[in-house]
Amino acid sequence: LAACDRLGVAIVPRGGGTGLAGGAVPIHGEVIVSLERLRRVREVCPERWQMTVEAGVTTEHVKRLAAENGLYFPPDPGAAEQSHIGGNVATNAGGPHAFKYGPTGEWVLGLEVVLASGCVVELGGSLRKDVAGLRLADLLVGSEGTLGLITAVTLRLLPAREASLPIVGFFASDAAACHAVSSAVAYGTEPAALEFIDRAVMAEVGAAYPGRVPAGMAAVLADFDGSRPAAIAARAEFSALLEEASAVALDEPAGAVLWRWRDGISPVVSTIRGGKVSEDVAVPVDRLAEAVDRIRQIGSQHALPTYVWGHAGNGNLHPNFLVDPRASEEIVVAESAAACVFSLALELGGSISGEHGVGWLKRTQIDRQLSPEQREAQWAIKRALDPQGLLNPGKKLGDDPQRTSWLAA
Amino acid sequence: LAACDRLGVAIVPRGGGTGLAGGAVPIHGEVIVSLERLRRVREVCPERWQMTVEAGVTTEHVKRLAAENGLYFPPDPGAAEQSHIGGNVATNAGGPHAFKYGPTGEWVLGLEVVLASGCVVELGGSLRKDVAGLRLADLLVGSEGTLGLITAVTLRLLPAREASLPIVGFFASDAAACHAVSSAVAYGTEPAALEFIDRAVMAEVGAAYPGRVPAGMAAVLADFDGSRPAAIAARAEFSALLEEASAVALDEPAGAVLWRWRDGISPVVSTIRGGKVSEDVAVPVDRLAEAVDRIRQIGSQHALPTYVWGHAGNGNLHPNFLVDPRASEEIVVAESAAACVFSLALELGGSISGEHGVGWLKRTQIDRQLSPEQREAQWAIKRALDPQGLLNPGKKLGDDPQRTSWLAA
Repeated sequence: LAACDRLGVAIVPRGGGTGLAGGAVPIHGEVIVSLERLRRVREVCPERWQMTVEAGVTTEHVKRLAAENGLYFPPDPGAAEQSHIGGNVATNAGGPHAFKYGPTGEWVLGLEVVLASGCVVELGGSLRKDVAGLRLADLLVGSEGTLGLITAVTLRLLPAREASLPIVGFFASDAAACHAVSSAVAYGTEPAALEFIDRAVMAEVGAAYPGRVPAGMAAVLADFDGSRPAAIAARAEFSALLEEASAVALDEPAGAVLWRWRDGISPVVSTIRGGKVSEDVAVPVDRLAEAVDRIRQIGSQHALPTYVWGHAGNGNLHPNFLVDPRASEEIVVAESAAACVFSLALELGGSISGEHGVGWLKRTQIDRQLSPEQREAQWAIKRALDPQGLLNPGKKLGDDPQRTSWLAA
Repeated sequence: LAACDRLGVAIVPRGGGTGLAGGAVPIHGEVIVSLERLRRVREVCPERWQMTVEAGVTTEHVKRLAAENGLYFPPDPGAAEQSHIGGNVATNAGGPHAFKYGPTGEWVLGLEVVLASGCVVELGGSLRKDVAGLRLADLLVGSEGTLGLITAVTLRLLPAREASLPIVGFFASDAAACHAVSSAVAYGTEPAALEFIDRAVMAEVGAAYPGRVPAGMAAVLADFDGSRPAAIAARAEFSALLEEASAVALDEPAGAVLWRWRDGISPVVSTIRGGKVSEDVAVPVDRLAEAVDRIRQIGSQHALPTYVWGHAGNGNLHPNFLVDPRASEEIVVAESAAACVFSLALELGGSISGEHGVGWLKRTQIDRQLSPEQREAQWAIKRALDPQGLLNPGKKLGDDPQRTSWLAA
């Protein structure tokens, strides 16, 4: 990085390459800085509920190491076997259990970061409480490689959960399933995960479900964890709520099998037509049913097969429009539908990205969500830490409003 | 702020004025910007577990509003009736229940902030998940008025806890009490709060304890919350752990009375000699016994009555050296003892401030904890958001390394 800084060469940091927004993809000949050889586990401290690992350690390895030490690392973004913890921090990756536990950033105590100058700096540390200095580690979380290169991470962990008990409710309509989610949140139930899968998706993935799926149903998945008696009691209470919401059937499958099945939804839906334009908006949880209904209308208006699922408790939905990847006109239509979805999310008080990040793909959308004042504050920070604009240019923040285009850099 | 920016006049934001580090005190004729009239509750959304309140709303009012709506706002810094939520965010205030729930910043979704220019900007928002843009709200958390003026806060809440059950263990020595805390953490028990009070403090405050205190004992307080059966079971397990750690007696007083008593420790200790130099260091939780022992040695070496308590589960200790406030030579000796405590904290891998902030009082200590590279990164951010250095100058970050002294601004 020091050499690139001296020579004015732009770089793109790349972890496991599992991102869905193109954040780790070089666009105009940037140098890729791969983190894949930074794989060392520097320290595991079970007595402090902490570990320090290098950026290229996979998420699955972090979770396994925690479990082997009687601990629990809650974040569970997709593709955990491939994605790197450094990339998870850089994108503030989410996943189903972010409902109770928050996204990856909640679990970061400290970061080792290479700044644009090539200087290596520790941000944050290993303390559970520390208010000396500004919280720069939190600023690097979710910055998608635009402020510095994360090379190691000190993670806060929890003691292992004794039990993690899922429950699935099947509903005759998408709206009924969404209302059940909103009502469960309003009621004050606290599952660890709270997911929605629409009827269209269930028709495709139902056969692989580890149990019996009634035909033509949407699904709500929840997970209750903690001590076994507490998880059993909380799940029973939730079950009663779903019955009131007229769930047609309830099932309590085994956790590991269920979440593996859940993790397979996106690839299965991809195979239907060979490609999909896959989005990741967030809305307030009480607007969930409205959001899903209008996403389906947008799909119909564009004559695109439409599939919706997501981390509904957090209001985070993944609308997917299927395309034939060889038909470029279909992709154009699907992108136009995605633009309507962004408008919808913003109209409902939501976000253009709940967890996938802005990356390259949404760089032109970010200005629709942020005011000129917000953009200016963001760019002031970006320029302070990357004065030459060499760190992942064009990603996350879009174009520098003080320059005609980031290419002018 | 726009006028001050135009005229080059420095300002000091001031909330409830309960801070312990002098962060809200003008030092060289700055204009005080009081937030006390920003007292409006803008929105309470029980169905989203959220509220938006202006900066001058007291912490106690936030907690009460949450409770009235079936919700729970976990942070419980001292002086909740006086301190303002804006100040709590600006200092990232802690408290006993930060052990399980983290400090105030964990509960911030969005902020309304006035920047140095006078421009009002929304940072973050009201969504539980949103990765559009850099996380500037998190950067403002704990910035102690040096990056912007917080005027309103959108808080994330939780459903009300059904039960909150305390337990107190009494130990024959400070070391035994500290070891019990470290062991309980290593064992994986998860209380909501985990506090230590040394023998010297207990001798002073024991009479007001809502129960019977055996003579000459140190105390460990813990709190278990959640559903009533879960809290009862977890407390019983912890109780068994304390017995193994040879607690001399165990007590299960009523929660509200216990925490009111706990909140009174600091004022009671103040009255013994009329004044105290009160510190707030953090150390790794497995160094707790060593830290307390050496703090006591430092007190003896300086011939100062020494009292130690704190949020031990988080490694956050409050060493207090008693002084006669009219004897300026005693204050000098106590400050010299405090400097030794900072050195000790840093030697143990800790922090010069766990929760009170840097403010004005510790501005000369911050450089002992942060490397020159860390300082430079912090100052790059400060200069980006406050180019004239008018926001709470000299606080939090100490002196600008690019200037001889902040006064030169």
